[in-house]
Amino acid sequence: MAPPDILISEVGPRDGLQSVKATMPTAHKLRWIDALVAAGLREIEVGSFVPARLLPQMADVAEVVRHALTHPGITVMALVPNLRGAESALASGVHKITLPVSASAAHSQANVRKTPDEMVQELRAITRLRAETGPRVLVEVGISTAFGCTLQGEVPEDDVIRLAAACVAAGVDEVGLSDTTGMANPAQVRRLFTRLRSEIGPHAGAAHMHNTRGLGLANCLAAYDVGVRTFDASLGGLGGCPYAPGASGNVVTEDLVFMFEAMGVTTGVDLARLFAARIPLQAGLPGEPVYGMTPEAGLPKGWTQETTHA
Amino acid sequence: MAPPDILISEVGPRDGLQSVKATMPTAHKLRWIDALVAAGLREIEVGSFVPARLLPQMADVAEVVRHALTHPGITVMALVPNLRGAESALASGVHKITLPVSASAAHSQANVRKTPDEMVQELRAITRLRAETGPRVLVEVGISTAFGCTLQGEVPEDDVIRLAAACVAAGVDEVGLSDTTGMANPAQVRRLFTRLRSEIGPHAGAAHMHNTRGLGLANCLAAYDVGVRTFDASLGGLGGCPYAPGASGNVVTEDLVFMFEAMGVTTGVDLARLFAARIPLQAGLPGEPVYGMTPEAGLPKGWTQETTHA
Repeated sequence: MAPPDILISEVGPRDGLQSVKATMPTAHKLRWIDALVAAGLREIEVGSFVPARLLPQMADVAEVVRHALTHPGITVMALVPNLRGAESALASGVHKITLPVSASAAHSQANVRKTPDEMVQELRAITRLRAETGPRVLVEVGISTAFGCTLQGEVPEDDVIRLAAACVAAGVDEVGLSDTTGMANPAQVRRLFTRLRSEIGPHAGAAHMHNTRGLGLANCLAAYDVGVRTFDASLGGLGGCPYAPGASGNVVTEDLVFMFEAMGVTTGVDLARLFAARIPLQAGLPGEPVYGMTPEAGLPKGWTQETTHA
Repeated sequence: MAPPDILISEVGPRDGLQSVKATMPTAHKLRWIDALVAAGLREIEVGSFVPARLLPQMADVAEVVRHALTHPGITVMALVPNLRGAESALASGVHKITLPVSASAAHSQANVRKTPDEMVQELRAITRLRAETGPRVLVEVGISTAFGCTLQGEVPEDDVIRLAAACVAAGVDEVGLSDTTGMANPAQVRRLFTRLRSEIGPHAGAAHMHNTRGLGLANCLAAYDVGVRTFDASLGGLGGCPYAPGASGNVVTEDLVFMFEAMGVTTGVDLARLFAARIPLQAGLPGEPVYGMTPEAGLPKGWTQETTHA
């Protein structure tokens, strides 16, 4: 069977959960991850290695990683904010660690209390550690505020590209671009990802789009048009209403998969099973709203997912 | 000053109002239209010429047309379902009439109790009448269910293109494609509009997209990519929640204008004044929800509309 055309990287268990108040019990996280795997998702960001006192939601991350690793063929990913987190993540056995590095100095200070340059220093230490203790583990960077910043406003494109190159020079495998603040537009997405690919070639990574102003799917389409093949998304738009103001508003996995599958771009994800993965999510977070227009409207009459997966 | 790159055709006063239960008082309609004009919209579908007993909302259409015509430089458009409606529309002095012609036989019967071929016959009678009584009036067709039908399922692309060519042969000036049921995807939009332009050249008209499954803006972007320069949209998504199931869900004018302006594609519409046009809309329909993610999230920090209009 041909491999899918694109990779949907499910970030709900990390990016989504990180933004909700209620803590999802570990057993529910595991069932939810099982359902995501059953739907055909092949890369899942399962949690973040941060101090439990700062983020109780992620206190069980090592256990969640251990469980996710029992699924063969899945890339198990975790976020780490710094070297200390990377040590724990490498010890846990994850396949991939991801770090947010802000292109906006103001956002970087607010988020990790470091300048972008200091974060690149940290990356060097992390890739050295990786070489020693986990040479097969991939290190990814998502450049936050790549398309604009709510603190600093415009973020010069040169800053973004220079930072991406510095990350690769520091030994990072993949550098993606994140529209952290929902400010991106399709023309900018095409321009910046084209420059990124021209600058760092095969190290160019995922598009991480938000739907703050309704442009999430249009921006993913724009990224696809210029060769991006990995897209972050969150099941049920978990982590903030993607259709409401002020919300983090990750692109909804269900809508994103529907768009690409309807276009004939295979994702490896089975939509019916993806809709079913909303059940354990809702069971683990009672009362938390779950979004998604395609699950609510239903699949179009006569529409079939021509590829079968999972 | 250079003309805008694209034309946003505001359909709220017709397509939007037609779907809401409450009847907007005439004076409010006029104020709303004034505000749309003040925002820089240059084409407005102000109502439909249908029997008042079938659609009381449109009983005042002749008066609304008369008022809209007092604004210089605006294209005043009205929908008509048949020859009788066209007679009234031509008598009212509109600049443009638009007819829905379904590519799906099932939808055509349900909507106008005619086959697509019978509608083409009707078009011939209408363009003959236009030649006699209003030779400067434009006749537009929007092909309904061009991307799929909730009754018949898939609609063959050949049927859509053949119907478009038949409309042009019947004397119609512009033929656009409507995603009446929110089933379109960007690949299909590119394919079908490319075929449409290749078949009928300069007669190819507007993209009328719905947001039923969240793909409205992505589909407009796709249409733009293949040369479409006219886009229908509804202020506040009036006429059904564009973010909810089962709704008609016209693309929201505010979000569409934001997307294009952010891309540097000029629309001639001033976003601040467009947001202000929501006030008379809400005043005329108290209690009716008004949607739009960009008005709710606000414009991005540091963002300015580089072109000034209106």
